Amino acid sequence: MSASKKGLFIVFEGVEGSGKSTQCRLLSERLTLEGISNIRLREPGSTETGENIRAWLAGGSDIDRFSELFLLSAARSALVKQKLKPSLVEKRVVVLDRYIYSTIAYQGFARGIRRDIIDRINGIATEGLDPHKVFLLDVDPEISFERKKDNISDRWESEDIHFHRKVRNGYLSIAKGNPTLWEILDASSDEKSIHQLVWQSVLELFDQI
Amino acid sequence: MSASKKGLFIVFEGVEGSGKSTQCRLLSERLTLEGISNIRLREPGSTETGENIRAWLAGGSDIDRFSELFLLSAARSALVKQKLKPSLVEKRVVVLDRYIYSTIAYQGFARGIRRDIIDRINGIATEGLDPHKVFLLDVDPEISFERKKDNISDRWESEDIHFHRKVRNGYLSIAKGNPTLWEILDASSDEKSIHQLVWQSVLELFDQI
Repeated sequence: MSASKKGLFIVFEGVEGSGKSTQCRLLSERLTLEGISNIRLREPGSTETGENIRAWLAGGSDIDRFSELFLLSAARSALVKQKLKPSLVEKRVVVLDRYIYSTIAYQGFARGIRRDIIDRINGIATEGLDPHKVFLLDVDPEISFERKKDNISDRWESEDIHFHRKVRNGYLSIAKGNPTLWEILDASSDEKSIHQLVWQSVLELFDQI
Repeated sequence: MSASKKGLFIVFEGVEGSGKSTQCRLLSERLTLEGISNIRLREPGSTETGENIRAWLAGGSDIDRFSELFLLSAARSALVKQKLKPSLVEKRVVVLDRYIYSTIAYQGFARGIRRDIIDRINGIATEGLDPHKVFLLDVDPEISFERKKDNISDRWESEDIHFHRKVRNGYLSIAKGNPTLWEILDASSDEKSIHQLVWQSVLELFDQI
């Protein structure tokens, strides 16, 4: 496998409790096992600026939807410049938990900020950097909520079920609009089966790029 | 004077040490003395989100220019929604220390971010809200630096003189492009003389709006 010679940028998206962080970890461990240099990152986070913003959004109360959009974009800009681009230059595989699509789904579809505004700001924050593949861990929020109900920890998790249905439908709409980039996975099945599907797709990606 | 029946939005801009906060205070005190309801605000700041961002930018080290732009915009959006618009609805006079023009001068002229990007983001953060008057406290940064040199307290104040010359020239360029909105004041003269000029202009504004 010539995998280790190529930089690859993989994103996981989904509602709260859909298993993103588990799948990110499983993929990263598998890559490491195969001797493929990789880095696991998360949004907002993985930089000093980003982790500050993450902690802050989790606790903040008076933050309007545009302030939220700008704070997430500050975290994203720091991540892209400090971690994401340098990792790809080093030919590592980047496994990222949330990216611009979270902003489209949450701040766009669920909070109602206009799509052209979000696309423009996402473009500025990322300098246009797109991933090679996005896995959508799709699940009915009713089910994912049941999983996490004893562990409500941030401003999004405390939103009501209608909000999360809008997020889910937003994701499905984006994913169906670009089936080459996106792969929709049933997040209600067991984590090992999902990981196997992810791994097969990653192997195909290595052959393609 | 029918002044108290009208909302009025006044901004002070200028390089570090140009006397903005002094002039904001003097104008606010004068308005209060005349029985005119007013509020003194500052950017970034004057909200929980804004003051957090202010403290953070003052201490932060790994913040790139786009993260900086987004953080300032988050603070601005919170200020506009929580303080600025409600104050104008209540027919108060808003005296604001820095606004969108600081972003054009610092992040645009001095840090080199494209003007169309800055204008777009400023428009989103402010929902297009423009002031009635902007006072530019214009001074050679060499002089204002001399005033503040024992009190270097934030990331902009610690930039070198070339940076602050770009900021000053940026301000002059913006101000000269819109002489109806802007009034350029010589910030090297004494504070009481400057305040008198400001006060005359504010009285004229009350007659106009």
